[in-house]
Amino acid sequence: MSFIKKPVTGMRDILPEEMELRNYLMDTIREVYESYGFSQMEAPVVEHIENLTSKQGGDNEKLIFRIMKRGEKLAESGEALKNGDFDALTDSGLRYDLTVPLSRYYSNNQAKLQKPFKALQIGPVFRADRPQKGRFRQFVQCDIDIFGDPTNLAEKELILATTEALSRIGIDKYGLKVYINDRRILFGMVSFAGFPAEDAEKILIVLDKADKIGAEGVDEELRSMGYAEESISKLRSILDSYKGSADSVRAMGRDIDNEEIKAACENVADIMESIAAMKSRNISLCFDPKLVRGMGYYTGTIFEAKVESFGSSVCGGGRYDKMIGRFTGQDVPAVGFSIGFERIVTILLEGGCELPKQKEKLAVLMEKGMSPEKVGEIFELCEEERRKGRRVFVAWMAKNKKFQKEGLANEGYGEIREFFNN
Amino acid sequence: MSFIKKPVTGMRDILPEEMELRNYLMDTIREVYESYGFSQMEAPVVEHIENLTSKQGGDNEKLIFRIMKRGEKLAESGEALKNGDFDALTDSGLRYDLTVPLSRYYSNNQAKLQKPFKALQIGPVFRADRPQKGRFRQFVQCDIDIFGDPTNLAEKELILATTEALSRIGIDKYGLKVYINDRRILFGMVSFAGFPAEDAEKILIVLDKADKIGAEGVDEELRSMGYAEESISKLRSILDSYKGSADSVRAMGRDIDNEEIKAACENVADIMESIAAMKSRNISLCFDPKLVRGMGYYTGTIFEAKVESFGSSVCGGGRYDKMIGRFTGQDVPAVGFSIGFERIVTILLEGGCELPKQKEKLAVLMEKGMSPEKVGEIFELCEEERRKGRRVFVAWMAKNKKFQKEGLANEGYGEIREFFNN
Repeated sequence: MSFIKKPVTGMRDILPEEMELRNYLMDTIREVYESYGFSQMEAPVVEHIENLTSKQGGDNEKLIFRIMKRGEKLAESGEALKNGDFDALTDSGLRYDLTVPLSRYYSNNQAKLQKPFKALQIGPVFRADRPQKGRFRQFVQCDIDIFGDPTNLAEKELILATTEALSRIGIDKYGLKVYINDRRILFGMVSFAGFPAEDAEKILIVLDKADKIGAEGVDEELRSMGYAEESISKLRSILDSYKGSADSVRAMGRDIDNEEIKAACENVADIMESIAAMKSRNISLCFDPKLVRGMGYYTGTIFEAKVESFGSSVCGGGRYDKMIGRFTGQDVPAVGFSIGFERIVTILLEGGCELPKQKEKLAVLMEKGMSPEKVGEIFELCEEERRKGRRVFVAWMAKNKKFQKEGLANEGYGEIREFFNN
Repeated sequence: MSFIKKPVTGMRDILPEEMELRNYLMDTIREVYESYGFSQMEAPVVEHIENLTSKQGGDNEKLIFRIMKRGEKLAESGEALKNGDFDALTDSGLRYDLTVPLSRYYSNNQAKLQKPFKALQIGPVFRADRPQKGRFRQFVQCDIDIFGDPTNLAEKELILATTEALSRIGIDKYGLKVYINDRRILFGMVSFAGFPAEDAEKILIVLDKADKIGAEGVDEELRSMGYAEESISKLRSILDSYKGSADSVRAMGRDIDNEEIKAACENVADIMESIAAMKSRNISLCFDPKLVRGMGYYTGTIFEAKVESFGSSVCGGGRYDKMIGRFTGQDVPAVGFSIGFERIVTILLEGGCELPKQKEKLAVLMEKGMSPEKVGEIFELCEEERRKGRRVFVAWMAKNKKFQKEGLANEGYGEIREFFNN
């Protein structure tokens, strides 16, 4: 049996150069979030299969990496197998986001946590997506979540903290825009426009395609699904009439006679006005009534941040007040904002990112055959340089020394010292 | 279907307080290793099942978390299942160490990497161990490895760097001792003592139990396996006569007429003498001829670091010159030293660890019902404090304010400011 050199399908090896950027980004994001009072914690990457297949995870549930049972438990599931029941073979899987494990974590550790609990998580998640450019099956997310605050103070903090983190790592210059909506506005519009209530989810799935197929594409698809032209026009009219500013949200709340919509508009407008009032910050926050976030667990506010020049969303989040109750029987308000770390890395690698000044790098090359005593002296010298804060790389002189020195220079070794046998 | 609150069996949730310690340790270890010229990289946590089940991983191969195939590939394996062939269902698994993925990584990326390549990896590995105190199924390892240096300059660097990292995080005061041996000495002794060559691995497995069952226990077991008393005594005599100092290694090399042993003794003595010559460092490095490291892939030097007062090994490593050839057909020298991060964390949590001075923490409490304008002003104030380098936690005043303030004080909030409605 010979070994396989490439990583598993859809996953990738990270080279040292990119690792430096990633570490800088994660350290900076962590520093910013901690300054907002968020505490980093960690949950395992493996989750109970029951927690991953609750039907709330949307499309992600189809993409779970399932882990097989072991030993006796595996043997016991043999019967189920004969009926083609593969699910009986697994008891756990790799998490596909950080929200489900965090909710389990919060439910499990509530008594020991701050109130409200402001969580920071940076870690890998796993989705068995069809492999494509820029999309990997193991990727990092950076999430902040606030548990225990039913007011939109939490939303405001998440938006302030996240935009500050993105600004600090240099995303600003690519044009960062945040979009906000509310699930209650989505459901309210669909209901107000006269669509059947039980079809709301289906209709929102179509609306979610707006970025890809355009407004006409959405309307066409709704027509082809058999919905009344009147409802389609009414919905289109609402979407066109109310978007952008806090005033437009307030107008929607005034104009549309639907209790859910009125409450949600008050919520969204208030958040937008508070953010706009922050003069020391220059946050672009717009109301987007057609913003749909795929997770079924959102209950209120939803938001998304996009980088203009790249057209892709870099962060997403929302309120999910009914999640903890699924674990404990008692609901706890929860709202989070997740940074798509890999997209950020891609944007910065393509656009260029200036890392802060690194430590000086010194390379020490020794001629082969150097005596142990001489090597020892050189080692002591290196230790001294390290105490002065330099990174010191020691190696034997290569046969092709010119090539070796060029390589070192390319890697930022500003000084190369050579030691020869006497 | 209701959700499960506890983590999966054998894994655990990490609370914010421990997370701070872990971050400090990982940052410090990373800083030290980088000062030795090591470059951090990352490989996926998922590995090809072929790479994980090569028979070289020792006991770890029995403890693999296997991942099920998906979609068509899963359906296709239905036939194999009817024969009870569970293995046909999996194509990958979670890595049980960092060495196998690193070797695959090196084989896959060789052309783009420094020569010699000095790798630093910090990441989780997974073993489905029987759950027990202090042993978790997901745990972090910190490894440094050097590829492309066939000389023991690499071993010396690994020992210097690892002991420095452990010293910097405060493990020194618990009494750190490093033990060194060589697989060739192990095989050489077994052969010289007259045991059958094909039984060497079995005999070393028994020798490896010395810490648990003692010298007499080892000899007893060898007797019960049917080996000649003469061989058992001869081996015991060698183990007793040569241990501890570099001189004893040199003596073994002189006294025992076995080529493998002579070469290995020269190697080990030279490493020990170089390390002892480092006067600025005070590294306790002893020769332990009965040190056996469980992995079948070690080819030469092996080492282990122990913390006296805890009796457990905190780091382990060795040379594995034949690994890369399994991937590429061409051997590349490789040697590594792995820190058992969780053991370090346990030792420091139990013994006490002083984290360096943290940023000042300010808590801001606001009376409920505060106007959006007032909240905005308070937000601006918080931003200013953050710009000054403080961590600022904002929350509504709780009903039980006294309890709230006590909790904040316990978490290190040195200042609490309260804002009331006028």
